[in-house]
Amino acid sequence: MNYQSILNSIEQEINIHDFEGKVANYIPELAKVDRNKFGMHLHCINNGHYAFGDSNERFSIQSISKVLALIMAFELERDAIWKRVDVEPSGDPFNSLVQLEYENGIPRNPLINAGALVICDILVSHLKNPKADFLNFIRKISNNPTINYDEKVAKSEKEWGFRNSALLHLMKSFGNIKNDIETILDFYVYQCSLTMTCKELSETFMLFANKGRILGTNEQIIPWNRIKRINAIMMTCGFYDEAGEFSFRVGLPGKSGVGGGIVAIHPNYYSVAAWSPKLNPKGNSAIGMAALELLTTKTELSIF
Amino acid sequence: MNYQSILNSIEQEINIHDFEGKVANYIPELAKVDRNKFGMHLHCINNGHYAFGDSNERFSIQSISKVLALIMAFELERDAIWKRVDVEPSGDPFNSLVQLEYENGIPRNPLINAGALVICDILVSHLKNPKADFLNFIRKISNNPTINYDEKVAKSEKEWGFRNSALLHLMKSFGNIKNDIETILDFYVYQCSLTMTCKELSETFMLFANKGRILGTNEQIIPWNRIKRINAIMMTCGFYDEAGEFSFRVGLPGKSGVGGGIVAIHPNYYSVAAWSPKLNPKGNSAIGMAALELLTTKTELSIF
Amino acid sequence: MNYQSILNSIEQEINIHDFEGKVANYIPELAKVDRNKFGMHLHCINNGHYAFGDSNERFSIQSISKVLALIMAFELERDAIWKRVDVEPSGDPFNSLVQLEYENGIPRNPLINAGALVICDILVSHLKNPKADFLNFIRKISNNPTINYDEKVAKSEKEWGFRNSALLHLMKSFGNIKNDIETILDFYVYQCSLTMTCKELSETFMLFANKGRILGTNEQIIPWNRIKRINAIMMTCGFYDEAGEFSFRVGLPGKSGVGGGIVAIHPNYYSVAAWSPKLNPKGNSAIGMAALELLTTKTELSIF
Amino acid sequence: MNYQSILNSIEQEINIHDFEGKVANYIPELAKVDRNKFGMHLHCINNGHYAFGDSNERFSIQSISKVLALIMAFELERDAIWKRVDVEPSGDPFNSLVQLEYENGIPRNPLINAGALVICDILVSHLKNPKADFLNFIRKISNNPTINYDEKVAKSEKEWGFRNSALLHLMKSFGNIKNDIETILDFYVYQCSLTMTCKELSETFMLFANKGRILGTNEQIIPWNRIKRINAIMMTCGFYDEAGEFSFRVGLPGKSGVGGGIVAIHPNYYSVAAWSPKLNPKGNSAIGMAALELLTTKTELSIF
Repeated sequence: MNYQSILNSIEQEINIHDFEGKVANYIPELAKVDRNKFGMHLHCINNGHYAFGDSNERFSIQSISKVLALIMAFELERDAIWKRVDVEPSGDPFNSLVQLEYENGIPRNPLINAGALVICDILVSHLKNPKADFLNFIRKISNNPTINYDEKVAKSEKEWGFRNSALLHLMKSFGNIKNDIETILDFYVYQCSLTMTCKELSETFMLFANKGRILGTNEQIIPWNRIKRINAIMMTCGFYDEAGEFSFRVGLPGKSGVGGGIVAIHPNYYSVAAWSPKLNPKGNSAIGMAALELLTTKTELSIF
Repeated sequence: MNYQSILNSIEQEINIHDFEGKVANYIPELAKVDRNKFGMHLHCINNGHYAFGDSNERFSIQSISKVLALIMAFELERDAIWKRVDVEPSGDPFNSLVQLEYENGIPRNPLINAGALVICDILVSHLKNPKADFLNFIRKISNNPTINYDEKVAKSEKEWGFRNSALLHLMKSFGNIKNDIETILDFYVYQCSLTMTCKELSETFMLFANKGRILGTNEQIIPWNRIKRINAIMMTCGFYDEAGEFSFRVGLPGKSGVGGGIVAIHPNYYSVAAWSPKLNPKGNSAIGMAALELLTTKTELSIF
Repeated sequence: MNYQSILNSIEQEINIHDFEGKVANYIPELAKVDRNKFGMHLHCINNGHYAFGDSNERFSIQSISKVLALIMAFELERDAIWKRVDVEPSGDPFNSLVQLEYENGIPRNPLINAGALVICDILVSHLKNPKADFLNFIRKISNNPTINYDEKVAKSEKEWGFRNSALLHLMKSFGNIKNDIETILDFYVYQCSLTMTCKELSETFMLFANKGRILGTNEQIIPWNRIKRINAIMMTCGFYDEAGEFSFRVGLPGKSGVGGGIVAIHPNYYSVAAWSPKLNPKGNSAIGMAALELLTTKTELSIF
Repeated sequence: MNYQSILNSIEQEINIHDFEGKVANYIPELAKVDRNKFGMHLHCINNGHYAFGDSNERFSIQSISKVLALIMAFELERDAIWKRVDVEPSGDPFNSLVQLEYENGIPRNPLINAGALVICDILVSHLKNPKADFLNFIRKISNNPTINYDEKVAKSEKEWGFRNSALLHLMKSFGNIKNDIETILDFYVYQCSLTMTCKELSETFMLFANKGRILGTNEQIIPWNRIKRINAIMMTCGFYDEAGEFSFRVGLPGKSGVGGGIVAIHPNYYSVAAWSPKLNPKGNSAIGMAALELLTTKTELSIF
């Protein structure tokens, strides 16, 4: 298959001006991003690389980082983490606090905010320097020592974290948060502030496409047995209350962020990242989803 | 009517050992109270006083204080407060966070925790020394300079305030909290820690039975027009999700606290307080409700 | 007090064109009513009668009839009915099906649709000819043999009863409906189709203002003990999710219907009915509520 | 890979007496099934067949039939069906009526009851003889003219259909049901009463493992483009509120039924069916899930 020509046709078919979409504005720094950015990078397991557009410009990966924090926590605590967070889709956008209350402080899954905060709490319990240690882990799996946090974004979000504080206090009232709330929040906003290009993002997620082996060294740092479970969680929970829609249209496990990035993987085949800051009403990149739908349709490489 | 003999018959008919009920244990200091305490005090508008049992022992009035904070805030801000808190019953015990989320941070009414926290926020905005000024207000309407906070209870609750913090952070995310969260929480736990005897409580609430006039001086410090509205809110919202049951069985506006106190008033007739720490599953004094039901049945003085 | 001049001033102060309000349109027959109708009738316990406007024109009392069915069922089954329906406010407009599901088919109170359907089921179990027997009961308490159903309205509603069918089937799945669903629905729509004038409505509800005695004969047909409980339920549940607002603004037990009628009572003083078909967004007569608020403000006769 | 020896080891490792589980009892006929039945059948794309236990005994496939009705409706109406039913996981077990109400009568997905009833409504609109035509379709895709309904089961369920009636009436109130409710219910219970063996079930679902081609003739009766979407829906919605758990543990698209059957497919590899009537608290076969988890672990053939 000629992947580059497929990517070219995707770039041509998608007219970014056809898509409405709003740039995330609740984090002031993100609101400054040019809404017409659009890029895509496909990394095949045989090391083929294909790309177009703004694929080499860094953007804030935001919630996509939750998958990376999750795999790190899973390595540290193994199956013990599933006592503190469930693996079910969250149902609807208002459910965060509702479900937490009905379900005694156990978040529905580790990819919604409440669950990601529990994962942060777990990492804070284990890591000496949570921010530095997590960054080193990311640099290792991406085989890229230049990956970094964006302090401006981290601090920009911090001022708006009342809702995350509410979640943390509520979970603490149920005994499901162990560490100091300010420390967790600080780590959380740094984690979300990681910036990557489409290329870097697809390279980082080769870990999930390649059964736990990292780029470059090909070292197996995570057993497949755990990788497949995280892939399963991305499949059912990776897109807020649009997980079903992404599964239906694209047919790959993946994760989106409000920075407009989406990463998706096809186990044993490829990892792919798309970026466009215009978000649909559910908070996912409208153009990113359209591009990935075209990719699996044209390549006939959905996991289904 | 011979009120004292009616009270005596209530004391005799109620066998406190027939009631199960649990003493509130989420505030450690409250858990130490003798579960078999039981007292009642009736203060008639013509100044008749009738009582039995432990009616002269002070207890923690807890949520009953929310009515007192409400009338103070209502005086300070008038109808502007209804933009920040509604006057509808809250429906069910789990609703606090749920409703806040669906209704954009506007609490259902000022007598549930979320609403009482908004009222505290309003008082913190207006008062130079919230704790001292509020205490002085209470001493004035009760015509009793010995009323005080119980610091041990205040501090005991403070350690368990994660859920209230969650509510405050959530409301702050909607812009409905203006002051520093720690300051509000500190004022809130002090407010709830007020201790009174049944006698003092009934005297304090004569304000509501007597169209806004205070004891002793008979000074009209609140216009009737506002008193009747607070009485209406007590009627529909004074007993968490058991407001309908209290209205159905007792038929008076009133308010309960997890310390086991209940106060109720019959406009133009009397104010009455009962105290017994055993709580029913809805968090209201089981024996207190039974005693008040007997009172309105025997005197045939329900407002209905 | 000169009640007629108070009523006159209410009629003058209210400019019906100031109120937006929508005429109920889900029942086609009701949609035909002139939206500018407005009348009021006050019946004092000493037999004084005061009125203005369209107070002698019959309208569809709709949900107001639920109170009348309730008192009849209460007489027939006594406290057994409270095992099948609760007495708590329903919280929010979407709750009907939600609460039924969470609370195992037990409706929140007898004045929401689900509860009223259970009451119909109880009447169908007891009455030989539900429609005829209920009508005779109404004629008796109103001392008025001309009261009747409006068949056109009853049949008009029947075609739109899918939601009530849903409620009945759901409750039947929990075992809380005993009779044939079609029979209950048929009785229910007839019950709701009763037409009365403001004068007739206030006369009928003298039963609740006058401790269970009916007009004309003064016969005590219901003991006060039961009347006060129904009054309490009207207070906390009579206005859907606006019960708190009505209590707050008007301060009387009452009940509204989507035909634009509102009836309210002041125990031992009076019964009053107002009618104006323009409904506020919560489904209650906007002008009717305003008129009643003026009445209790001007007469200073709220129960609070 | 030696599939038969893998299946043998699964049969040996699972001690059915270690599993609690309750046989579905809300359908009387199903309650009669021997709770210790256990069988499994694996059908590989290369036509290899492997099995153990009670794999040749027919059982009631119940909700598994919803996938078959869905693919038939999808063929008939194409993407128009997604205007009447969404493709998102349903979140929690109580949500059926709740979500329908909040989301204006649009079911969350076609594999929960509400959605399956909409699909039945669509089929009733298109088919001359819904029951016969649907059965013929099943016989065609399974290449098996002996597949049939179990009338006893169909009639047994019919008596308990109050909740489904509630769903249908509620959706009809929103205009999302077009045909007569009794007709839909009748078709629905027949559809659910289909009986198959594990062997027959896995053969039928080869359609989904084999890109839309049927057994025997290898005729492509459904384009892959539609098959992959149904597989995606099975992935995110096939196990009520345990879809995330199944994805996490097993990692295959599939569907369960309260008769104790589970079918799952690995696109381009195999279709597999397991049967054991003991249900876990979420209503899925406890042993079936354990067997499938062992299968994907031992074969290392999860889609992730």
